[in-house]
Amino acid sequence: MAEKRYLLTPGPTPVPPEVLAELARPVIHHRERDFRDIYERCLLRLRDVYRTRNDVLMYTTSGTGAFESAVANLTSPGDRQLVLSAGNFGERWAAMVKAFGADLVHLRLDWGETPDADDLRAALSDTDGVRVVYLTHSETSTGVVADVQALAAVAREAGAVVVVDAVSSLGAVPLETDAWGIDVVVSGSQKALMCPPGIAFASVSAAALEAASRAASPRYVMDWERTRKAQAKLDAPFTPAVSIVRALNVSLGLLLEEGLEAAFDRHARLGRACREGAKAMGLELFSPDEERSAVVTAIRPPDGVDATHIVEGLRERFGITIANGQGELKGKIFRIGHIGWFDVFDITTALAAVELVLTDAGAEIERGVAVTRALEAWAEHTPV
Amino acid sequence: MAEKRYLLTPGPTPVPPEVLAELARPVIHHRERDFRDIYERCLLRLRDVYRTRNDVLMYTTSGTGAFESAVANLTSPGDRQLVLSAGNFGERWAAMVKAFGADLVHLRLDWGETPDADDLRAALSDTDGVRVVYLTHSETSTGVVADVQALAAVAREAGAVVVVDAVSSLGAVPLETDAWGIDVVVSGSQKALMCPPGIAFASVSAAALEAASRAASPRYVMDWERTRKAQAKLDAPFTPAVSIVRALNVSLGLLLEEGLEAAFDRHARLGRACREGAKAMGLELFSPDEERSAVVTAIRPPDGVDATHIVEGLRERFGITIANGQGELKGKIFRIGHIGWFDVFDITTALAAVELVLTDAGAEIERGVAVTRALEAWAEHTPV
Repeated sequence: MAEKRYLLTPGPTPVPPEVLAELARPVIHHRERDFRDIYERCLLRLRDVYRTRNDVLMYTTSGTGAFESAVANLTSPGDRQLVLSAGNFGERWAAMVKAFGADLVHLRLDWGETPDADDLRAALSDTDGVRVVYLTHSETSTGVVADVQALAAVAREAGAVVVVDAVSSLGAVPLETDAWGIDVVVSGSQKALMCPPGIAFASVSAAALEAASRAASPRYVMDWERTRKAQAKLDAPFTPAVSIVRALNVSLGLLLEEGLEAAFDRHARLGRACREGAKAMGLELFSPDEERSAVVTAIRPPDGVDATHIVEGLRERFGITIANGQGELKGKIFRIGHIGWFDVFDITTALAAVELVLTDAGAEIERGVAVTRALEAWAEHTPV
Repeated sequence: MAEKRYLLTPGPTPVPPEVLAELARPVIHHRERDFRDIYERCLLRLRDVYRTRNDVLMYTTSGTGAFESAVANLTSPGDRQLVLSAGNFGERWAAMVKAFGADLVHLRLDWGETPDADDLRAALSDTDGVRVVYLTHSETSTGVVADVQALAAVAREAGAVVVVDAVSSLGAVPLETDAWGIDVVVSGSQKALMCPPGIAFASVSAAALEAASRAASPRYVMDWERTRKAQAKLDAPFTPAVSIVRALNVSLGLLLEEGLEAAFDRHARLGRACREGAKAMGLELFSPDEERSAVVTAIRPPDGVDATHIVEGLRERFGITIANGQGELKGKIFRIGHIGWFDVFDITTALAAVELVLTDAGAEIERGVAVTRALEAWAEHTPV
C-alpha cells in the first residue's frame, strides 16, 4: 500500500480535495472570458479576506516575490527605511532592503522575541526621515504573532508607509488592512488560504501607490502601477498561473463560506490544542503560550534530543512532515504548523507521532496525555 | 451538455491529461525528499531539452519574469545593450532594458520582418561597447522564427553576452543552446513544454554568470547566483509552485519520450498543414511560408473582414480560442498556435471553424479544401 503522507508544516499546507480537483481542469487562456470571470471573483474575494478596499495586486511568484514587489516599488537608493525583525522572515526584509540600496535602520530583536510598540516608537524617534517601516505579522520561523495593529499605529504616527508581511497569518488570525491603516500587506496562496504555492499578493493603499510613483528602483513585471492598471481591466499584464488562480478562487470561496471569524476561532483553538498537548507531554514551548499563537507552534525538544531527530523520525517512520528550526534555531526547535485546511486530528496526529519518537529516544513521557489534553483544549471555546 | 472547449493559441497551450492529473496530487513540501527527487529530475530534463550543460535556473513566474531575470542580472545603469526586435516580444526586451537604465541600442524592425544576421552585424559595427545582445527566437506576435544560430554567432563575434527569448520555441523548433553558443536562453512552462503557466527558466553560461557578478541592478528573488547555489543543493531558494514543477516533470518526460527530433518534425508538419490549409482557403499568410514557421501561423483575413470578428466568432459559436493580432496588428491578423500537445486534427478543427465563420461573413471559399489540403501537407515528411 502506498504510504499515507501528512503535511503539517506552516507552508506549503494541505489543500482540500475541491481545490486539487480544480487544478486538474483543462488550461484556459488568460484573456478569455471564462478566465476573466474567475480572475474578477478571485480579486474580490482577496479584498474580502484582506478586509480592504485597496487593490490587491496578484503576482505569479512566491511570498518572497511579493516582499520584493514592496521593496522594489517603495525604494530609491539612499532612502531611509526601518525593518523591525525578530526572526528569519523579518531579517529577509532587512536583506532585501539592503539589496535595493536603502539606508537601512534595523531594529533587530532576538529570534523568538515578541516586538513591542514602545521599542518601535523609540527607534523611530531616534531617527529622522524614515519613509517606510517593514513589519512581520506572523514570524513563521519562531511562531510569534505580533500585535501589528499597535506597531502599525506607531509607524503611521511617524509618517511612514507601513508594510506588513502577512504571508502565514492572512486568513488564520485577525488582520484588518484598512481599519488598522496598513498601506501594504503581502501574502501568498500556500498558507492559510489552502491553495498550492505559486501566487502571491500585495495590497496597496493610495499612499503606497503615491510613494511608488516616486521610487527609482527598476522593476517591470512587479511594477505596481502596471499591475493595477491591468487588473482594473481584468487583463492580467503577463500570463498568470491560470490553474493556481482557479484553485485559489475555490479555496478563497471555501474560506469565506466558513467565515473569517470562524476561521480565526478555529486557528486559535488549533494553536491552543497544540500548545496544551505539548505541555502535557512535558515539553517546553518556544513560541509564546498565548491565544495569538495560532499559526505555528514552536517547541523545544527535551534535553539531549536534537530537533532534527524528531523531524526526521516523523518523516522516515510515519510519512509526517513537520518543520525544523530555521537558521540559528535549526535542531533547537521543531515546528508544527496549523494554518489552512487543518482540524484537531491533524494536531493529535502530530503530537502522537512526536510522543512515539521521543519515547523511543528515551524521553520519559506519560503516554496518551498529549492527545487527550489537546482534544480537551480544542473543545474550549473562547472569544478571539 | 457542457460546451467542449479548444485552446488553440500559442500559449497557454493544451495540457495532456497525465499532466493535469499530476497537478491534482496532494501538495508536498519543497524541502522534502519526495520533492527534491522531482526537482532534480526536472532540472536534468530541462537541460536535455535546452541541449545545454549550463545550469537552467527555475523561477516561479511568467515568461516575462524570466526575461526580467536576464535584464536584472546583466545590467548596470548606463551599460550599452542592443535589442533586435521585430514584434511585440522583441519590443518588450527593449522596454525592460530601458526600465533598468541601460543605454539601449534598438535595432527595431517592422513587425513581421525576419531579422537578418547582416543587419545585426552592421548595427554592432556602428556602435562600440555593446555588452549584451537580446534576441527573439520565435516572435509569437508575428509567427516569425528567426535564425538565432546565425544571429547569435554575429553577437558573439562582437564580444557580447547573447540572450535569447525561446519562450514559444523551446521544444517546438531546433535550439542548440551550447552548440550555438547562447549564453542565456529564457523560456516558460506553458508553451511547447505542455504544462500550465507558472514556471519559467533561464539557462546561464559561465560568461553570463561572470557578467552578472558585475551587474549593479538590485534583485533578490531572481538573483542568478542565489538560485544557482540553491539549485546545486536541490534546495529551492524560495517556495516554488510545487504542483507546477511536478506537472512540468511529467510533461518534460512526455516530450523526451517522444524525442526532441520527432517533436521538431511534428511541429514543422503542423505548421505546414496550417499554412497549406489557409492558402487552400484563399487566405494570405502573414507569417513566412517556410518550414521554420512551426510555432504559430499568422493569417490575414480576407478584405473587409476584421480579424476580431473571426476570433470572436470561433469563441462565441464554437468554444475555440485562437489569438488576435497584438498591438498594431490587432484586427489585422489572426493567429493559430500549434505548439505543445497538438496534432493535425487540432489544425483541421481550427481551419474548419475559420472556414465556417468566413463563409457566413460572405467570403467566397471553396468548402472543404482547407481541411483536405492540411491533411495532405501533414502527411508529407521532410527532414527538418
